[in-house]
Amino acid sequence: MFDQNQRYKLIISYDGTCYCGWQVQAQETKKSIQHLIQNALQTVLRHPLDLTGSGRTDAGVHARGQTAHFDSGVPFEPKRWLLSFNALLPPDIRILNIEPVPPLFHARYSALSKVYHYHLHLNPIADPFSRFYSYKVLGRIDLDTLKRGAALFLGTHDFSSFANRKETGPAAYDSIRTLHRLDVVEQKNGVRLEFEGNGFLYKMVRNITGTLLEVGYGRIEPEQIPQILAAKDRRQAGPAAPPQGLFLMEVIYS
Amino acid sequence: MFDQNQRYKLIISYDGTCYCGWQVQAQETKKSIQHLIQNALQTVLRHPLDLTGSGRTDAGVHARGQTAHFDSGVPFEPKRWLLSFNALLPPDIRILNIEPVPPLFHARYSALSKVYHYHLHLNPIADPFSRFYSYKVLGRIDLDTLKRGAALFLGTHDFSSFANRKETGPAAYDSIRTLHRLDVVEQKNGVRLEFEGNGFLYKMVRNITGTLLEVGYGRIEPEQIPQILAAKDRRQAGPAAPPQGLFLMEVIYS
Repeated sequence: MFDQNQRYKLIISYDGTCYCGWQVQAQETKKSIQHLIQNALQTVLRHPLDLTGSGRTDAGVHARGQTAHFDSGVPFEPKRWLLSFNALLPPDIRILNIEPVPPLFHARYSALSKVYHYHLHLNPIADPFSRFYSYKVLGRIDLDTLKRGAALFLGTHDFSSFANRKETGPAAYDSIRTLHRLDVVEQKNGVRLEFEGNGFLYKMVRNITGTLLEVGYGRIEPEQIPQILAAKDRRQAGPAAPPQGLFLMEVIYS
Repeated sequence: MFDQNQRYKLIISYDGTCYCGWQVQAQETKKSIQHLIQNALQTVLRHPLDLTGSGRTDAGVHARGQTAHFDSGVPFEPKRWLLSFNALLPPDIRILNIEPVPPLFHARYSALSKVYHYHLHLNPIADPFSRFYSYKVLGRIDLDTLKRGAALFLGTHDFSSFANRKETGPAAYDSIRTLHRLDVVEQKNGVRLEFEGNGFLYKMVRNITGTLLEVGYGRIEPEQIPQILAAKDRRQAGPAAPPQGLFLMEVIYS
């Protein structure tokens, strides 16, 4: 049976509010999204399997286009699988699409780029509906200065100053990434930061967002950003923005 | 002090998910929105007061433009009041505006019309973010038939067939209302029903919506709607649509 295995790619949307994140964290009591989806798949397909995501998302972070892959020898029934998987999942986790992919497809390693959005709510009063889906910025932000800062992150850099380590250990991991796009899109009650890059280090989007807020507040000059990048020192950058404003929108493959 | 009282009008937005509704219900354990706002006002203004809403909303129903009035002799400080009231309220209840109004203004009796939106989610899979803010319709709906049905509710009718009684008692209350508008607005994953009328009976929007769903399913013919209205019998109409799709959008005064 196993040499007849077919690989499948999932596109997944979830509201991360009630979860410990995509993957199980040590000493977490909340459930992980990956674990719940893997269980649903195993129940329907009746065999053990490993679900491999494009990458982790932290507790409280949302996704509209997370991807994952798994292998199965069970004959593919697109409509039944989609309905059955979703029927076994809670309503805040939805599988949007299932498709067969070549055996060398890998949700993480085949990804060419990822798109993240971060929602900043700039009206401190006006919206009871966005409290789990945006970060309410309380101070006054200068948007033009923030935009000047955002432009300085574009291109290929060593992003060590904007990466958190997941565990302590040897520092020898590659932290060079290319940020193709960092758009500041103005909306009714705030702004949306749109990130597109060939890869993101742990907490990189939230650390860049937190640093851009410092720039918007006037506490960091936009011109300091190249120096902060060059320092390769996490302590030089601003604090991480909180998780609830962050959405993984799309993982792009060739 | 009391003859110097000024009347104030509030505009309020809330996520109704966690509340028993605008007003305290008997034997409810969840908090009411009216009660929480009244407490916040009393704490800031340091005197007892009554907060009168434009009308009730049920448990799970949301508002983007609920209105209410209260009286106070404390000198008006618009910015401080707005910030202080909101600081004492949970993040899912926000006061959007406070303004002084003439002493004869009444949040309920001065209202000329109200606007409600009801969100129907017609894609059963695609959105983990709308589960508390729309009703996921599982069957197939014929939108053209639903629209034909919606048009038949317009105008002035006795809406008894679409009203629930709050308590048993003599039936002698006026149930004639005018529905100015019932638009069916198509959206990405569903439709929004937009109601505007000079007043709405208890559960009237949800009962009309539930009946229109029966029309969309093909279980009730659009042509039956005038007969259902004429019957003045709640049992002739469809079931109430659930609360989470309903938003009180605006209360209009002269």
